[in-house]
Amino acid sequence: MNRQFSKYQGLGNDFILIDDRHLQEPSLSPELAVQMCDRNFGIGADGVIFALAGQNGTDYTMRIYNSDGSEPQMCGNGIRCLAQFIARLEGNLVPGRSYNIHTLAGTMKPRLETDGQVTVDMGTPFLEAGEIPTGLGAHGEKVIARPLEVGGRSWLVTCVSMGNPHCITFVTDADEIDLATIGPLFEHHPVFPERTNTEFVEIVRPDYLKMRVWERGAGATLACGTGACATVVAGVLNQKCDRSCTVELPGGCLHIHWHEDGRLYMKGPAKEVFTGVYQYQYK
Amino acid sequence: MNRQFSKYQGLGNDFILIDDRHLQEPSLSPELAVQMCDRNFGIGADGVIFALAGQNGTDYTMRIYNSDGSEPQMCGNGIRCLAQFIARLEGNLVPGRSYNIHTLAGTMKPRLETDGQVTVDMGTPFLEAGEIPTGLGAHGEKVIARPLEVGGRSWLVTCVSMGNPHCITFVTDADEIDLATIGPLFEHHPVFPERTNTEFVEIVRPDYLKMRVWERGAGATLACGTGACATVVAGVLNQKCDRSCTVELPGGCLHIHWHEDGRLYMKGPAKEVFTGVYQYQYK
Repeated sequence: MNRQFSKYQGLGNDFILIDDRHLQEPSLSPELAVQMCDRNFGIGADGVIFALAGQNGTDYTMRIYNSDGSEPQMCGNGIRCLAQFIARLEGNLVPGRSYNIHTLAGTMKPRLETDGQVTVDMGTPFLEAGEIPTGLGAHGEKVIARPLEVGGRSWLVTCVSMGNPHCITFVTDADEIDLATIGPLFEHHPVFPERTNTEFVEIVRPDYLKMRVWERGAGATLACGTGACATVVAGVLNQKCDRSCTVELPGGCLHIHWHEDGRLYMKGPAKEVFTGVYQYQYK
Repeated sequence: MNRQFSKYQGLGNDFILIDDRHLQEPSLSPELAVQMCDRNFGIGADGVIFALAGQNGTDYTMRIYNSDGSEPQMCGNGIRCLAQFIARLEGNLVPGRSYNIHTLAGTMKPRLETDGQVTVDMGTPFLEAGEIPTGLGAHGEKVIARPLEVGGRSWLVTCVSMGNPHCITFVTDADEIDLATIGPLFEHHPVFPERTNTEFVEIVRPDYLKMRVWERGAGATLACGTGACATVVAGVLNQKCDRSCTVELPGGCLHIHWHEDGRLYMKGPAKEVFTGVYQYQYK
């Protein structure tokens, strides 16, 4: 059988986009998504995203299958790609246009910017030790610039949850960090009962940070949207950066704005790389 | 700019195919090939193959850029994909049809088989120690079932060159070999002055071998066509297998026939996965 698709990427996180706007459920099975995501035998992607009919008064519904066939609730890089894909399908790339998208994590509202990027409301951070969770502070306490011994060295760490746990530490040179060695030691440190994502952050300027990330369960990755948000929160709490910052990641740059009302807005790129027709057999 | 392409794979070795039949030289630069081969920001592939106008009386010319921008002389998996691509372009998938293809390694003659696979003449093996090269035998001697100490264990090895060096050892269970540990120890063993590819081969039946390969400079790979050929030569020299064998690799099966005239014929799959249009800017 033949299937039309588009391939998008945001900061190197890449997705196959499927136009199912007339449907309530994805037209492809998780098994076929796994086959399509295979980088040698298939199209190759981190996931397959479906643009479905809206629910509960929203414009569209987003569903996503990961390359292993699992279904996450949401994906920050993915929803930017979906917003560009929908704008392309509607033939209507109007800057300032936003969409109400129903997702398994609630309604999201990505907005197309004049520079071609997409902004997404990432919600509010959680700062209390019990919410992270971490044993680095008493219940109800914030964890800001606390010393932590990891790999035979003392680090000053700040902990922020964006729904998932982040441990941020500021360093003089992000490039010199040996992520593969130190990352797992942070991830599995006993003060993080649900393990942690770890960000090593260099303050280049108060409005420009350079970040390298070790993701819980995924290791060194090209980008981590929640990590970039948590990093700016940590930088502000430590009076090291502005509330509006560019965060440079290995896959490219995100712009993070921590609004006075407490919400975080993430602006980043999402680009169509190619369109195609996939030939497949159900195995 | 927009560029049409097709994506093919043979045993998981995957290529972007470009129709340049009217041209003498590839229409894309090695730099753009690198960009297209990127698995996160581009299409994703092991290389880009160009179908060019024939030279010296051949039907077509094959050129290939690797994902790092280098240009190999030839590629066994790649030429099978090229043969299928040309047949598709000609609208003429006739079993038994063969093409004379000019390559940097001379004229190759892939043939389309009735089962949809493609057979390629892989040439003759070299068996003398000096030709491999290896210090395991005196100059002019063959190296068959010689003991070699690697990783604290003695292995019986047979050495075969297919233009590149191979060291084959027969094992009772190919799956239990710890390739990442033992592979590099073979590759860099002092008896191989130009290093070596190493094949760990289980004889399932005299006509069915299971092979895992550690490739010189590439590590554990899904498939190695010259390695499958060298394996059958080694199996015949050790009276362990037939001259016609199926060789099972992690990426799929190859059929190898060592003809009485000394030449090796390799039959294997090559499939179109998708066709597409790539959007690019020259950086």
